[in-house]
Amino acid sequence: MPQNTCQLRVRYGETDQMRVAYYAHYLNWFEVGRSSLLRELGMSYRDIEREAIFLPVVESHCRYLKPARYDDLLRITTRVSRPKGARLLFEYEIHRVPDQELLATGNTVHVAVDDRGKPRRLPERLSRLIR
Amino acid sequence: MPQNTCQLRVRYGETDQMRVAYYAHYLNWFEVGRSSLLRELGMSYRDIEREAIFLPVVESHCRYLKPARYDDLLRITTRVSRPKGARLLFEYEIHRVPDQELLATGNTVHVAVDDRGKPRRLPERLSRLIR
Amino acid sequence: MPQNTCQLRVRYGETDQMRVAYYAHYLNWFEVGRSSLLRELGMSYRDIEREAIFLPVVESHCRYLKPARYDDLLRITTRVSRPKGARLLFEYEIHRVPDQELLATGNTVHVAVDDRGKPRRLPERLSRLIR
Amino acid sequence: MPQNTCQLRVRYGETDQMRVAYYAHYLNWFEVGRSSLLRELGMSYRDIEREAIFLPVVESHCRYLKPARYDDLLRITTRVSRPKGARLLFEYEIHRVPDQELLATGNTVHVAVDDRGKPRRLPERLSRLIR
Repeated sequence: MPQNTCQLRVRYGETDQMRVAYYAHYLNWFEVGRSSLLRELGMSYRDIEREAIFLPVVESHCRYLKPARYDDLLRITTRVSRPKGARLLFEYEIHRVPDQELLATGNTVHVAVDDRGKPRRLPERLSRLIR
Repeated sequence: MPQNTCQLRVRYGETDQMRVAYYAHYLNWFEVGRSSLLRELGMSYRDIEREAIFLPVVESHCRYLKPARYDDLLRITTRVSRPKGARLLFEYEIHRVPDQELLATGNTVHVAVDDRGKPRRLPERLSRLIR
Repeated sequence: MPQNTCQLRVRYGETDQMRVAYYAHYLNWFEVGRSSLLRELGMSYRDIEREAIFLPVVESHCRYLKPARYDDLLRITTRVSRPKGARLLFEYEIHRVPDQELLATGNTVHVAVDDRGKPRRLPERLSRLIR
Repeated sequence: MPQNTCQLRVRYGETDQMRVAYYAHYLNWFEVGRSSLLRELGMSYRDIEREAIFLPVVESHCRYLKPARYDDLLRITTRVSRPKGARLLFEYEIHRVPDQELLATGNTVHVAVDDRGKPRRLPERLSRLIR
């Protein structure tokens, strides 16, 4: 099961008046993790769209365990499962770097579609890279 | 089970290069729904924070059924369940207004905490309003 | 000089840990104002893009006078100047509704381009509506 | 005049349906540049807020020269001017890394305030570091 880690810092604009990162931004960070994983696998999401295949999200889930704060350095760990037809599952863990505390877990489900929104098999090359 | 509906339009900045609303923004829209529900119940979230009670999200879930597009008028329907201790469950449905198409469903789980992050019972008045 | 006003409420996710709206969101609100103005003029921005004309921003400017806070009801006043060639200037004022306090002023400059990014004259109909 | 460079990649959620980065996100990137500069100077913005000094933005300006696209690697160059009383000016340039193309320039003006919003002199240590 391919896995990638990447790092990012919590931006000021990602905090809210509770003085922690706002919950919607975790989905942005998941996307940073996905992009990083695909790039490392050897077929970036930019490449995938160049073949007129898109991977819209059909489901997202996130559990928020501990708050992330401004300027925290985070590590996003992303895994992708063997695709089932047009469906692709990504799983995520977000840790705070200095103390390795687990802050959040989540997953997203994607369906490969063509430029008219019709479900399509994943590009053969991507399926091979994931397997 | 208290219920609220409110409307919003998809902003240009909420779209992405797939020409549909980006998935993280649905969580922002859920928050608009929650705020609207609490305001209508008679105790706005602003009022709740004035009593030094906060309702951070501990879990979010969204299913994306059909894409929302720029300038679409959306209706957010929000329901809140009877609180269990410090826990509160909100459920959401997002419809496109002109044709009533259901675009997304989701829920968020919140835990009431004080200003030091300690779990707390909900303000008595809010519990009463929800029941 | 065509003018439009519209209202919106500050969302929780638009605040930051300074407990005020984060500065980048004012540009989102300006866009809400532009969209509202064009819709009222009779040619929505969605219509404009359907004619394969786009209005990317080439310059933005904002002065932040007083902070906007969560749940504040804001009024966006938007004006558009008579176009000069492909160039279009929008000007904005943001007031807090209950007390009419002026919170921010700003402007954006846009250039009409076709789908390959080449400058183009504005759609004739839009120019007429603005004049 | 202290200067810092840092890099970031354009996120998918930062694009819009024009297939380029949405204009408001440049202000988020400016903030990444400011945070990076202050951290490198030796007094992070987090440290500044710990001394109960805040640096809200009173003015922002951005010129958008060429579009930034999804997955583009960007270099943010940030400079800060010698403070005048409570006022602080940051200037920014955003380049696309592979070809060094200049995509945007801008600046932000900040005023140091205390936790009640009263203008305050900058922390002495920060003034020294900037000079």
